[in-house]
Amino acid sequence: MIIKIKRDASLEAVQRVLDFIKQEGFDLKDVSSDRVKIFGVIGDTSKLEARDFYAFEAVAEVIRIQSPYKKASREFQSNDTLIDLGDGVVIGGDQHVLMIGPCSVENEAQMMQVGAFLQRHNLKILRGGAFKPRTSPYAFQGMGEEGLKLMRRVADRYGLKVISEVPSVSAIALFEKYVDIIQVGARNMQNFHLLKALGQSRKPIFLKRGLSATIEEWLMSAEYIMHGGNDQVILCERGIRTFETYTRNTLDISAVLAVRELSHLPVIVDPSHASGRYKMIDPLAQAALAVGAHGQMIEIHPEPEKALSDGAQSLTLERFERLLEHLKPLADVLGKRLT
Amino acid sequence: MIIKIKRDASLEAVQRVLDFIKQEGFDLKDVSSDRVKIFGVIGDTSKLEARDFYAFEAVAEVIRIQSPYKKASREFQSNDTLIDLGDGVVIGGDQHVLMIGPCSVENEAQMMQVGAFLQRHNLKILRGGAFKPRTSPYAFQGMGEEGLKLMRRVADRYGLKVISEVPSVSAIALFEKYVDIIQVGARNMQNFHLLKALGQSRKPIFLKRGLSATIEEWLMSAEYIMHGGNDQVILCERGIRTFETYTRNTLDISAVLAVRELSHLPVIVDPSHASGRYKMIDPLAQAALAVGAHGQMIEIHPEPEKALSDGAQSLTLERFERLLEHLKPLADVLGKRLT
Amino acid sequence: MIIKIKRDASLEAVQRVLDFIKQEGFDLKDVSSDRVKIFGVIGDTSKLEARDFYAFEAVAEVIRIQSPYKKASREFQSNDTLIDLGDGVVIGGDQHVLMIGPCSVENEAQMMQVGAFLQRHNLKILRGGAFKPRTSPYAFQGMGEEGLKLMRRVADRYGLKVISEVPSVSAIALFEKYVDIIQVGARNMQNFHLLKALGQSRKPIFLKRGLSATIEEWLMSAEYIMHGGNDQVILCERGIRTFETYTRNTLDISAVLAVRELSHLPVIVDPSHASGRYKMIDPLAQAALAVGAHGQMIEIHPEPEKALSDGAQSLTLERFERLLEHLKPLADVLGKRLT
Amino acid sequence: MIIKIKRDASLEAVQRVLDFIKQEGFDLKDVSSDRVKIFGVIGDTSKLEARDFYAFEAVAEVIRIQSPYKKASREFQSNDTLIDLGDGVVIGGDQHVLMIGPCSVENEAQMMQVGAFLQRHNLKILRGGAFKPRTSPYAFQGMGEEGLKLMRRVADRYGLKVISEVPSVSAIALFEKYVDIIQVGARNMQNFHLLKALGQSRKPIFLKRGLSATIEEWLMSAEYIMHGGNDQVILCERGIRTFETYTRNTLDISAVLAVRELSHLPVIVDPSHASGRYKMIDPLAQAALAVGAHGQMIEIHPEPEKALSDGAQSLTLERFERLLEHLKPLADVLGKRLT
Repeated sequence: MIIKIKRDASLEAVQRVLDFIKQEGFDLKDVSSDRVKIFGVIGDTSKLEARDFYAFEAVAEVIRIQSPYKKASREFQSNDTLIDLGDGVVIGGDQHVLMIGPCSVENEAQMMQVGAFLQRHNLKILRGGAFKPRTSPYAFQGMGEEGLKLMRRVADRYGLKVISEVPSVSAIALFEKYVDIIQVGARNMQNFHLLKALGQSRKPIFLKRGLSATIEEWLMSAEYIMHGGNDQVILCERGIRTFETYTRNTLDISAVLAVRELSHLPVIVDPSHASGRYKMIDPLAQAALAVGAHGQMIEIHPEPEKALSDGAQSLTLERFERLLEHLKPLADVLGKRLT
Repeated sequence: MIIKIKRDASLEAVQRVLDFIKQEGFDLKDVSSDRVKIFGVIGDTSKLEARDFYAFEAVAEVIRIQSPYKKASREFQSNDTLIDLGDGVVIGGDQHVLMIGPCSVENEAQMMQVGAFLQRHNLKILRGGAFKPRTSPYAFQGMGEEGLKLMRRVADRYGLKVISEVPSVSAIALFEKYVDIIQVGARNMQNFHLLKALGQSRKPIFLKRGLSATIEEWLMSAEYIMHGGNDQVILCERGIRTFETYTRNTLDISAVLAVRELSHLPVIVDPSHASGRYKMIDPLAQAALAVGAHGQMIEIHPEPEKALSDGAQSLTLERFERLLEHLKPLADVLGKRLT
Repeated sequence: MIIKIKRDASLEAVQRVLDFIKQEGFDLKDVSSDRVKIFGVIGDTSKLEARDFYAFEAVAEVIRIQSPYKKASREFQSNDTLIDLGDGVVIGGDQHVLMIGPCSVENEAQMMQVGAFLQRHNLKILRGGAFKPRTSPYAFQGMGEEGLKLMRRVADRYGLKVISEVPSVSAIALFEKYVDIIQVGARNMQNFHLLKALGQSRKPIFLKRGLSATIEEWLMSAEYIMHGGNDQVILCERGIRTFETYTRNTLDISAVLAVRELSHLPVIVDPSHASGRYKMIDPLAQAALAVGAHGQMIEIHPEPEKALSDGAQSLTLERFERLLEHLKPLADVLGKRLT
Repeated sequence: MIIKIKRDASLEAVQRVLDFIKQEGFDLKDVSSDRVKIFGVIGDTSKLEARDFYAFEAVAEVIRIQSPYKKASREFQSNDTLIDLGDGVVIGGDQHVLMIGPCSVENEAQMMQVGAFLQRHNLKILRGGAFKPRTSPYAFQGMGEEGLKLMRRVADRYGLKVISEVPSVSAIALFEKYVDIIQVGARNMQNFHLLKALGQSRKPIFLKRGLSATIEEWLMSAEYIMHGGNDQVILCERGIRTFETYTRNTLDISAVLAVRELSHLPVIVDPSHASGRYKMIDPLAQAALAVGAHGQMIEIHPEPEKALSDGAQSLTLERFERLLEHLKPLADVLGKRLT
């Protein structure tokens, strides 16, 4: 951490800063030039909040050099984290895993049709929402526990793993009973109470990036979960908010690369939420595969026009089959295995 | 709601859209020109999600005309909502209420000093955090229930009301016991599970705007609470995220005006979080008073350099006294009563 | 265009709006429901500025339905625009064109080396900056006219086309003499004076998207050029500004898809400026090819550590050769020809 | 400047960085800890572009500590810059100057009415656009030179100063003939060619902040003008682009404070463009006065409903008179003189 001192700071005010730093157990190095007084703070500064130093009158600027996350950092662990879901499904290696299903679990017929479809195409992970976070209190809120049970039944019948979004701490126990991966929605990325509780879980956590979160904040949220003792975190880039309104969000494809440089955790792309437009999903999925994501989460629906939520970004089964046909030869060229 | 049809849409695809709209109980008006086919959907469209129509192949664009919130809307209630906290403290009228205290409740000495200070200056609302949402798991997380108890004790001794941020649904009962206003933090603005639960509470809810939330989304979150049966919602503008990094956030002062046009709910400004810099708080507070906010939340600390959180944006008691001296003559000119 | 009337508007105030619209030659359709008064404005509304209607006291909201651009719109021209540079180089069809070269033209040795390199790899378009728009007045500003002459000489020797960024109206004549494509930089995207002048040019214009421009604004800038009489506009997505600072900008890969839906103009991706990090360029280039861009602009430099500008985002010749080896099999699978 | 070295960097790669720095004439200080290798670069680093160091393979991160601008910095000049327009009008001191007039100069009757109105209210600066930067080529583009001549005539008759926006380098001579302050529009804030040319002018320059510009970028643009030899730069905060669409832009009121801390240049607020809504202008103007701006630019129009541009954000003369009545007592309390 680097601390720049104000030009007109009194000696006494500067001393208070230096005393505080030493008292917290850090070493100091003077990097001043004749124009500006600067100190380097040496030690494990990840427990310091840079902004707190601005409380000192003498401080002009504080600059963090070490990343504030540790366990999520590639500096802490250089090898890629592999998350083994059993039955040969491993996230984080050379498999490109597809997590497929409807936005909302709606009824048994829908889910059985989707389950059979996945099995037929040799896909392994079923997604579906049972507790839906909707911006309007007047919109469909999901089937709740019945939805989770139904997903489990379908998954067991067709040899699938289940991923679904958890709404709150009180629902975690329920999710641990029915699902294989617990999803944290974008709007809960900084629900620290929830993150702490998930740190106690033994299930892999699928952490969506917040709508306007930086990559550092996203990794800090992963750190919360890992700090609690759960190392199995999967990151998901699902589009960020920008000024563009033609797409629902804006897919930040370079975030995949940034995460892979900064962290050892696997990273998945969700082109459905990122674009909000079913026509864009196929080419975006090809781009996500090409850029090196570890997999994708894609919404499908047998009849999107009748979907209770997010029909606009759901592929019909036919369109998804075409997408698969496009991904296969690309995966071959890129040395990835579609799962 | 206005629906624009694609130029190359088949008659059958168009018919599916029209059938759906009629089936949902809405009337249709044709507003087409020779260049473009457009339909108006007539009725209470607040329960429709505009984006869902994009699931229909024939739909080029959907434009919402009615606001998606009802109870929070000025169209629903034209008079300003007044929130009466008792003892003559009313939020939403001609009082300019000041909610003052440290970022975190740290210990008894600190809180007693602050409580006495508020009483001496005839201020009525004590703020303080007991469960702190910190971006780092390694940072101070707050005193928890002990902090709430301490605040209540201080408030009772000095004739004050208490406001504090609730971390989760499970903590609501605790908060109802100790505080007068329950705060929802910016990062929980779209924690819909929490909003629903607060709709059941009889305490006023202080709803901070999310870091990158639009005003419509903010009012939709208020709608969640009101939909649950709790009409006492206070909005708080606390700065939004922009590209500027010199300030912690960017105070959106015109949001105060927008909210007052669109809604009947009172709106408070938090210049401490908005700027993150104690030197800016005084002039920003003057601006917030001038623009017509119903009050302000401001952080003070007897010794900011020793604060366990947010010292950088805390005023010393002396600086806050100077701020008060600046606000008083302005309030007189503007016809507002400082409370 | 849809006009929503305020609930408390006087009849006379409403009449003034309606009179104005009729007087401007438009038809009106009433789409009101019992709750809200709404009118549709029928006719070619592209010449109206929606925001101007807010000057009328009776107007609550104005919503544009037709896009404000015409010539740039796919509704105006359904076939893709092809830009034929001669010698078999065509932008906008099934070729994936690569525009390669250093950020700044620095000296003859550098440019000859790059020119020979392009020829050896059968690449056809040489990029290079002669007039550099630098955010600091203290930074290298480019070789100026000498740089353009040098590029032309190199291009003629190695059978290449030249693209370079024009700094101002007064330099257009110079550029017409030396280059094959005139580039408009991101910071000039809304320099309307420059766009108008380029509308008079007979050279193809390469229009970079502004740092925080929406796609509509970008297409409106293309419209300016086309309105002046120059139909040969190439769009370039070069990354937008977001809250993320790890990358220089954020590549908006779905903008390629949006532009191809909304417009008939070709669209190129610039992964160098988008990321600002040489390590990301290779995977981003693969993604850009996969998503369907018509080509890419990529910076290379024989010795990036000695580059006078943008060395951080320049590939060495060796790294670029590896990138080419990655693009080739992808292009085969995708049915594109690298040029 | 602080340079953090990659953990796996080779000694030779590190040496290349260090050699480069020394060769450029800087001193080095080693601030490494056992975890991370860090160097401080000592000297006048304002001429270095931080990003350029990323070209070196060994460099993990570069952090600028000195601001990249000099002449615009308060460190360079501690006293506030005063810009004396003659006749007692001084920008930057205790006057709060109002720059008032229509968006576009439309005709003589309009301008004479406005001129007489300013004189009657003892206001001194007339604003008006003669060359309008419009996002649509189909919109009114201004009266051009005739507009400038008309403004000058009106100003001379009513004892006023004139400010107007310059469209391009080629128009500067014309502006020097007719106006007292030359305005650079927000979309030209990084038109470096124009900034350089204005550095040669002897007229004060009014530099609007770009739509998504950071404060540092804004001050760097001021630096361009000052570097050319023109010290008379006035900054104007006119609203930034955010996700909020209810207002045209978002007034960043804390930018006034940031600029006053970082620079000695005067700063003006434009509540008309910032909000785009005439109803908000009055309260925003009060806030801008309270926060400490050196003045304001406000659009008025005798008949906003008939304005050729920006009627939505123009005050009628009556509404502006009411605004003046609101500002006067505030100015008295704040110790400012309305001019």
